[in-house]
Amino acid sequence: MARKQGSHSDITGPRVQDTALRLIARHGYAAVSMRQIAAEVGVQAGALYNYTPDKQSLLFDLMRAHMQDVLDALAAADLQGDPPARLDGFTRFHIRFHLPRSDQVFVSYMELRNLAPENFAILESMRREYETALENILRDGVAAGIFAVPDTRIATMAIIAMLTGLSHWYREGGRLGMDAIEEIYCNLVQKSVRR
Amino acid sequence: MARKQGSHSDITGPRVQDTALRLIARHGYAAVSMRQIAAEVGVQAGALYNYTPDKQSLLFDLMRAHMQDVLDALAAADLQGDPPARLDGFTRFHIRFHLPRSDQVFVSYMELRNLAPENFAILESMRREYETALENILRDGVAAGIFAVPDTRIATMAIIAMLTGLSHWYREGGRLGMDAIEEIYCNLVQKSVRR
Repeated sequence: MARKQGSHSDITGPRVQDTALRLIARHGYAAVSMRQIAAEVGVQAGALYNYTPDKQSLLFDLMRAHMQDVLDALAAADLQGDPPARLDGFTRFHIRFHLPRSDQVFVSYMELRNLAPENFAILESMRREYETALENILRDGVAAGIFAVPDTRIATMAIIAMLTGLSHWYREGGRLGMDAIEEIYCNLVQKSVRR
Repeated sequence: MARKQGSHSDITGPRVQDTALRLIARHGYAAVSMRQIAAEVGVQAGALYNYTPDKQSLLFDLMRAHMQDVLDALAAADLQGDPPARLDGFTRFHIRFHLPRSDQVFVSYMELRNLAPENFAILESMRREYETALENILRDGVAAGIFAVPDTRIATMAIIAMLTGLSHWYREGGRLGMDAIEEIYCNLVQKSVRR
């Protein structure tokens, strides 16, 4: 839907997204209404439809924006070097990107079940692109004789699950700082795929 | 609440639990009503209160029963041998136990946010007991000079996240059978903590 000239869309749009993300992360997609999102943003329910055609589009836009952000940030990180160096780079990138985005991580996983099939397919292909970036590092390491991985696809899924799991239990100000935790994960990940 | 003599509680109780689990996994706790659960079970809404005092108790009972099942099954598995053998045993146990219980895994993670604080504390302590079983294997391996783990607590959380992640993407009839997948995970986990 086209934005109205001179409207506050540029400010309200991100507020709609932020509010929807927070409410969906807290209560779940099925329990959150467009009316509730509008009330939190401070606009009339009808005004919300200037920003999004419906609740499904809002969910999909949130999830797609998150995946696009991660793909853009990974491209910008431009991991270089031999496979072990790129693997360390990926490990640190994944942790640093996802840790401050726990609501996005939670919603991205939890609300896959509520995506329309065509939206699910788009998200899946973006997710696959991210996974392939890691799998290519593992393949290169195997080809170079540095890594020994019985199945690069499963190792990819296992490593991503291991790293994302950190979002579920890490709390700032805990026993270990971020740098120490990154170091420990680099060690675990690196050893898991080495010859 | 005491069950009525001669009622069908023994049959209906598990059906209430199964139905609640399925509906909560599908729609989320906040979106599912006691009325909806009763309708699916095929009893009057009021009759549901013979089985559970309220929706919070129903959620907590589901989550507690799942954690109790995993603790009982782990105790029954009675892992023996040196630390690498026990680590393989734990890896296979975790995969085999959780894979057929994807609704329980999903609800146990997703609905932690909806537990009353006192219920959350009980679940956390059961979860900690399970994690400690793995951490003890890692500690024993480090003490024996077989494992080299910079931080056994973080390695524990990382391994459990890696293994549980399988529940999110494994589909029966896929490229690899269960035995092959277990073998690959044993290899990854074992190497990640070896000297």
